[in-house]
Amino acid sequence: MSQTEVKILGISGSLRAKSYNTAALRALQELLPPGVSLIEADISDLPLYNDDVREQGWPAPVERLRKQIAEADAIIFSTPEYNYSVPGVLKNAIDWASRPPSPPFAAKPAAIMGASPGAIGTARAQYHLRQIGVFLDLQFINKPEVMIGNCAERFDANGKLTHEPTREFLKTMVTALAERVRYLRDRK
Amino acid sequence: MSQTEVKILGISGSLRAKSYNTAALRALQELLPPGVSLIEADISDLPLYNDDVREQGWPAPVERLRKQIAEADAIIFSTPEYNYSVPGVLKNAIDWASRPPSPPFAAKPAAIMGASPGAIGTARAQYHLRQIGVFLDLQFINKPEVMIGNCAERFDANGKLTHEPTREFLKTMVTALAERVRYLRDRK
Amino acid sequence: MSQTEVKILGISGSLRAKSYNTAALRALQELLPPGVSLIEADISDLPLYNDDVREQGWPAPVERLRKQIAEADAIIFSTPEYNYSVPGVLKNAIDWASRPPSPPFAAKPAAIMGASPGAIGTARAQYHLRQIGVFLDLQFINKPEVMIGNCAERFDANGKLTHEPTREFLKTMVTALAERVRYLRDRK
Amino acid sequence: MSQTEVKILGISGSLRAKSYNTAALRALQELLPPGVSLIEADISDLPLYNDDVREQGWPAPVERLRKQIAEADAIIFSTPEYNYSVPGVLKNAIDWASRPPSPPFAAKPAAIMGASPGAIGTARAQYHLRQIGVFLDLQFINKPEVMIGNCAERFDANGKLTHEPTREFLKTMVTALAERVRYLRDRK
Repeated sequence: MSQTEVKILGISGSLRAKSYNTAALRALQELLPPGVSLIEADISDLPLYNDDVREQGWPAPVERLRKQIAEADAIIFSTPEYNYSVPGVLKNAIDWASRPPSPPFAAKPAAIMGASPGAIGTARAQYHLRQIGVFLDLQFINKPEVMIGNCAERFDANGKLTHEPTREFLKTMVTALAERVRYLRDRK
Repeated sequence: MSQTEVKILGISGSLRAKSYNTAALRALQELLPPGVSLIEADISDLPLYNDDVREQGWPAPVERLRKQIAEADAIIFSTPEYNYSVPGVLKNAIDWASRPPSPPFAAKPAAIMGASPGAIGTARAQYHLRQIGVFLDLQFINKPEVMIGNCAERFDANGKLTHEPTREFLKTMVTALAERVRYLRDRK
Repeated sequence: MSQTEVKILGISGSLRAKSYNTAALRALQELLPPGVSLIEADISDLPLYNDDVREQGWPAPVERLRKQIAEADAIIFSTPEYNYSVPGVLKNAIDWASRPPSPPFAAKPAAIMGASPGAIGTARAQYHLRQIGVFLDLQFINKPEVMIGNCAERFDANGKLTHEPTREFLKTMVTALAERVRYLRDRK
Repeated sequence: MSQTEVKILGISGSLRAKSYNTAALRALQELLPPGVSLIEADISDLPLYNDDVREQGWPAPVERLRKQIAEADAIIFSTPEYNYSVPGVLKNAIDWASRPPSPPFAAKPAAIMGASPGAIGTARAQYHLRQIGVFLDLQFINKPEVMIGNCAERFDANGKLTHEPTREFLKTMVTALAERVRYLRDRK
C-alpha cells in the first residue's frame, strides 16, 4: 500500500491536565506509522453551544476546530466515559463542529480509544459516540476497539504510557486507521 | 392520593432564547396538578467540566445547580436531540452535578420530554439519557414518553404551546411524575 | 420492612446445559432472603415468534411462560451477551410474552445479571435489555448492576458458584429486588 | 464506476406472511440498479440458538444461511422493531450465523431498512442492529437511513409498495450500497 501522507486530528474528551486520555494521544505520537502525522485539538476554550450565538458567526475557537477537522484525513477520539456516556465537553465540541454549512466530519475515517481507571474501560461512551457518528457520517473502523482499563498501572507518574502491550495495541489501531484512509484515497 | 407539595426542577437542554424545549417547560407551568411547583434551572453559565477546576471547589453556577437538584423532589429534562444524542450543554450540566460528594440526583423520580421540528422527535437522545440515568440512579418513569414532533405547528410565534392534545399529554406526564413522588414519599 | 412472600421468576438467556448464566440462577437459590422464592422459566421450547401463529392462539410453551410472568412479583434476567446485544433466544421469549392482551411484564420490578468468560462482562446486552424494559414497563432497579467477568474462575467444574464475593454480590442484588417489591406492595 | 455483478442477500426480521418488511424486500427487486441481484434468506426454520447443538454440527438451515451470507457481496436487513429492539427471530439468525469458524458477515457492506405502522418507524431497532454490526464487522452505510413510517398507507392490499417517494428512497439506498461494494472491490 502507498505511504502517502495521512493527517490525523486527535480530540481528547477530557480537559484535566493529567488526563490519561490526553496522555494516550501523546503516546500515539511515538507510535505513528511512516507518513502519518497527528495534531491535537484544543476544545477547552469553546463556548457552550448556543444556536443564537452560532447565527452571529462562528466563535474563533469553533472556527479553529472546524478548520482542523476539515483539513484532517481522519479523526481519533480519545475519551473517558462520564456517567455512562460521552463527556459533555466532547459532545459540546461535536455539536459546534457538526453544524452546516459544510459539516466537516462527513465521510472521514475515524477511530475511538478510551482509558479508564476501572475494568470495563469506556465501552458505554464508545457506543454512544458510534451512534453520534451515524449522523455525522463518520466512517468509524469497527476494529480494534481500544478500551484501556486499569490505566493507573499502564501509565507512569509523568503520564507516559509504559505498558508495552497497550502501546502495541494503539499502534495497531492507528495503523488500521491510516490504512483505511489510504485505501479509500487511492481509489478516488 | 395525598396532595403534599411536590417540587420539580426543570432542565432545558437548549440555550437558545426561542427554544421549543424551554417553551415546553414554560407551558408545563400552566399544566401542573394541585400542590406541584416547577422551577427552571439555568445551565447557560456553567463552565466546561474540568476535574482540575472541580478540585478547587464548585464554581458558583455549579453550586447553584447542585442545590436546586438536591432540593427538588423530581427532575424533568426537556431536551432537543443533537447529533443523535444528548446536547453537550445538557451533558455538561449533568457531568458537574453528578460528582461526589452527595450526588444530588440519586433516587429522584424523573421524566424526559423533547420537542423537535422533525417527525421522529427526540427519541435517540432520550434513550441515551435513560442510560445515563442508570448511573445517576435517577428513577425515570417509563411512560408516557413525550416526544413532540413537528413542533413548529404546535407552538405559536410567541412560543406558546397551543396544540391542545400536546398540552393534555404534558399534563398526563407531569401528573404521573408527581404521583410517583407522592407514592414513594408516603411509603417512607 | 415486612417479610411478606416474594415470588421471583428467573429467566436465563442461554440454552446450553452448562451455561454459567443458568448456573448463576441456581446459585441464587441458595442466597435468597427470608420469604423469597425463585422459579426458573424454560424458554427452550418456544417456537420462533410469528404473528400469524399468535393470531391462532398462544402455543402451549408461550402460555406457560406468560402465566409464570403474570404470577411472579419480580423478574430476574440472567443472560450472556451475544454479538454485543441480548441473545436472540431471550428476545424471542420477550417478544412472545410482551404481546397483548394483558402484557404480563407491566409494572413489575426487575433486575439483570450476566456472566461471561471475558473481562467486560455483559454490559452491552444489559443496556439493550434496559431499553427493551422501557417499552415493557419493567421497573428495573438501577443498582447493583451484576456483571460477572472471568466466570471460568468463579464457578467450579460442576457449575457451582464458588467465588464468595460474587455470592455476596448476588445476595445484595436479590435482596434489593425483594425490598423493592415489598416497598411497592406495602404502599398499595 | 464499473457495473460488475453485485449479489445482495436480503434478510427480513419478520416471519408473518404479510409482513411489510418482507414486502419491502420484494419491492426492492424491482428497484435494483443494473448488475445487482437480490436473494431473500429464509430464517423461519432455524432452531433456537443453543451452543450444545452447534457443537454437534450446523443444523441444515443454519448451514444454508451461512452459505448465503458467505456468497453475498452485501447484506440488507429489512426489519420491524419489537419491544424497542431487534426482533428475537432476526437476532437468533445472527447469533447462529456469527459463530466461528469463518464468521461470514465480516467486512461486508450492509444496510438497514424498516417499515412500521407508526410514525417513528424502526429507529430504536436500527441503532441496536448497528451496535451488533460493530462486533460482526459489518460495514453499514451511514446514509440513507430507511425508516418507513405509516406503512399501511404506502403498501396496497397485496403488499405492493405503491408510494412513489418511498420507492425512490429504497432505490437510493440499494444504489448506495451497490456503489460501496463496487468501490471497495475495484480497490482490491
